Amino acid sequence: MQVWKDYQAQHKDRFLNELLELLRIPSVSADSRHNEDTKRCAEAVKQRLEEAGAEKVEVCPTAGHPIVYGEKIIDPSFPTVLVYGHYDVQPPDPLDLWTSPPFEPVIKDGKIFARGACDDKGQFYMHVKAFETMIKTNTLPCNVKFMIEGEEEVGSNNLGIFLDSNKERLKADVVLISDTSMISLDTPSIDTGLRGLAYMEVGVTGPNRDLHSGVYGGAVANPATILAKMIASLHDENNHVTIPGFYDGVQELSAAERKKLNEAPFDEAEYKKDLGVEELWGEKGYTTIERTGIRPTLEVNGIWGGYTGEGAKTVLPSKAFAKISMRLVPGQDWVKISDLFKAHFEKIAPKSVKVTVTAHHGGSPYVTPTDHLAFKAASQAITETFGKEPIPVRGGGSIPIVALFEKVLGLKTVLMGFGLDSDNLHSPNEKYDLANFYKGIETIPYFHQYFAEGSKK
Amino acid sequence: MQVWKDYQAQHKDRFLNELLELLRIPSVSADSRHNEDTKRCAEAVKQRLEEAGAEKVEVCPTAGHPIVYGEKIIDPSFPTVLVYGHYDVQPPDPLDLWTSPPFEPVIKDGKIFARGACDDKGQFYMHVKAFETMIKTNTLPCNVKFMIEGEEEVGSNNLGIFLDSNKERLKADVVLISDTSMISLDTPSIDTGLRGLAYMEVGVTGPNRDLHSGVYGGAVANPATILAKMIASLHDENNHVTIPGFYDGVQELSAAERKKLNEAPFDEAEYKKDLGVEELWGEKGYTTIERTGIRPTLEVNGIWGGYTGEGAKTVLPSKAFAKISMRLVPGQDWVKISDLFKAHFEKIAPKSVKVTVTAHHGGSPYVTPTDHLAFKAASQAITETFGKEPIPVRGGGSIPIVALFEKVLGLKTVLMGFGLDSDNLHSPNEKYDLANFYKGIETIPYFHQYFAEGSKK
Repeated sequence: MQVWKDYQAQHKDRFLNELLELLRIPSVSADSRHNEDTKRCAEAVKQRLEEAGAEKVEVCPTAGHPIVYGEKIIDPSFPTVLVYGHYDVQPPDPLDLWTSPPFEPVIKDGKIFARGACDDKGQFYMHVKAFETMIKTNTLPCNVKFMIEGEEEVGSNNLGIFLDSNKERLKADVVLISDTSMISLDTPSIDTGLRGLAYMEVGVTGPNRDLHSGVYGGAVANPATILAKMIASLHDENNHVTIPGFYDGVQELSAAERKKLNEAPFDEAEYKKDLGVEELWGEKGYTTIERTGIRPTLEVNGIWGGYTGEGAKTVLPSKAFAKISMRLVPGQDWVKISDLFKAHFEKIAPKSVKVTVTAHHGGSPYVTPTDHLAFKAASQAITETFGKEPIPVRGGGSIPIVALFEKVLGLKTVLMGFGLDSDNLHSPNEKYDLANFYKGIETIPYFHQYFAEGSKK
Repeated sequence: MQVWKDYQAQHKDRFLNELLELLRIPSVSADSRHNEDTKRCAEAVKQRLEEAGAEKVEVCPTAGHPIVYGEKIIDPSFPTVLVYGHYDVQPPDPLDLWTSPPFEPVIKDGKIFARGACDDKGQFYMHVKAFETMIKTNTLPCNVKFMIEGEEEVGSNNLGIFLDSNKERLKADVVLISDTSMISLDTPSIDTGLRGLAYMEVGVTGPNRDLHSGVYGGAVANPATILAKMIASLHDENNHVTIPGFYDGVQELSAAERKKLNEAPFDEAEYKKDLGVEELWGEKGYTTIERTGIRPTLEVNGIWGGYTGEGAKTVLPSKAFAKISMRLVPGQDWVKISDLFKAHFEKIAPKSVKVTVTAHHGGSPYVTPTDHLAFKAASQAITETFGKEPIPVRGGGSIPIVALFEKVLGLKTVLMGFGLDSDNLHSPNEKYDLANFYKGIETIPYFHQYFAEGSKK
């Protein structure tokens, strides 16, 4: 609509500056040293929502980081869209690999570089600005509710409780989320599925103290060596996960579905070049698109033990640790998988060590029905502004709460993401293209329009 | 001798306080942030040697940390003992496991707790005080030279050059070192051998940047997983090291020698209880005494990669690292073993990652001839003050320079150590029993006496 175009053209720069301000707040939910920043970020989101025209805006406390809620009910008989996003971000380390400080956003070659630029501040903020556009131009065609949380990067542990105790307030017809990516601006796509997650932390203890590797070396189990052996055993020679029962219930796609999935553009040479690897690695019998989309995986996210400082220390460490997470697909339950992992890891530990296994958090996988009215509205909206119909793809990432929305609120979710896989989510130099940011703001109002129209039919 | 007893009884407390002063200097050679402390420690040692009666005392600069030299030549025709020790210490981490600050020595239950209390400040200082005793009572029976270095804990990289360029000054009949342990005060022992050392650092690089484990998980080799698999493969199911050629030339002991070796008192239940482990672990076919004494070993001293902070970060790391060291026995050359390790580690790396292998430092193994005059003198001295003949045992630790003394100076070394395996060398809460400290000061003059007498025959 021309009024939208005009309004957005007029306020373009302010939209960007407001986002940069949000990006300057180091709202790292995983690191308690940033609790004050996270709180400050929630307050900033509240203010932005009010300025945009939302009502009953509130910073709702939880046992962890607060959830920001706001709404605009133009007519209770109209359809309602619940917009979900998160203002918390991943830890920025390793800091030394950033070309500019993670919380001092800079714009280079038409990209915003900062932690959270794409995941998810840059993306949820598109919704705030699209909402503002419709409000200020008196064109909002449906009711909108915002729920912006602060614990997505640490498993949304308190969101479930919040949903349970706010069912009335959160009543809606669909959940709309921009926290995923598309193939490219030239090849728009919509994620129709997300992998689930089970995140574990393991500890292996050998001797009760660090030992002199000369005096005791060779006579006592070395926890770092044992941990290495245990991790090594979690994949077989075909890179299948060896945890008994891990694949039970995994929904295999039909040959036709796999064929369609593999039609999405993918250039292996380009992929390898971008990652700087000579060879890809993964589960035998599946393509890269399948390995990252429809297959469950197990990855070591971190490992540490013994002396890791400068120079040499001839120590036989007392303890070694690892963070290990599994991506899950439809048919797998994250609680069951966490239990299977724990039981297996404890079982394979030799008697010469003690192991501890703790589940950090997790979430169930999710698949969007492509025949859902809201999915069609998203598809139409993107076709409108991109001039191309988006390709449905399976995303490898996880937004644990999507399954929760269905379970607690009975709501389907549409994942209308505008990021790119090359945005370095969770990595140094995270970025978000200005073009994608503005394209998102331009597209979202059309979603509301088509969804409202469709609902009336 | 009574005069010795009297003098030492009279100055007992001062001896201890002087040691505590040395222990307050954090001379951590591996950590460049402590370079100034290390220098300060060398100056303190110089001053102590002069006060004790040494002459031509000098802090000799090297490419690394300085070496302190001093001597007392009573008669060039008399035999000369070269006393070696080191004033540098291991890094104190993990700091949080110390019950008192590592560089603020405290005395509890008759033990000195501090980094370096036993290794090696407490032990080399016994020699300074024993020397003082003989000087002040005009009973020094031979010439004594001191060489106290500052790089033992980082491989004595500059000692070889120093020996080479100071052959004349270092001329002696034997090297005497207290940097090892004995079974107990009730069961005195002397190390007749030391293991060599080859210390390596490895790095494994997968993708050129940290990746989102959801977007890329399952499609790219995870360097932490690959490193784990590579480390796991370095021992077979019998805990033999799998590096081709690793055992080539290893001198096997005769059945008789092994029998004698295993006669040393060893209580497995006590050993396990002390370490808090349910089961011991090691190379099949060998006893614990053999595993730590006459067999080569491979230990992971440190491992790190990915996210190791608080909470969860769903990252697929770009790099993972490990510090791996091997203890070597007679017949193994540390340079050759370092090369074998490098070649093997590079060979087993899958094409999906890049590996780097660097040799930190190393040293050759050494065996003391028990028929050597100086060994007999040490044995006699201990018998004199302990009332029991010491048991000859094979030590598992490494003092790389011992082999160097033989190669460059043509000198045999006697390892008259007064520490205990329970002294937590290289671990938190390192300690040295006051009883051992004083017993050493009491014993050392007898070594000089018997060695001088024996040499005259």
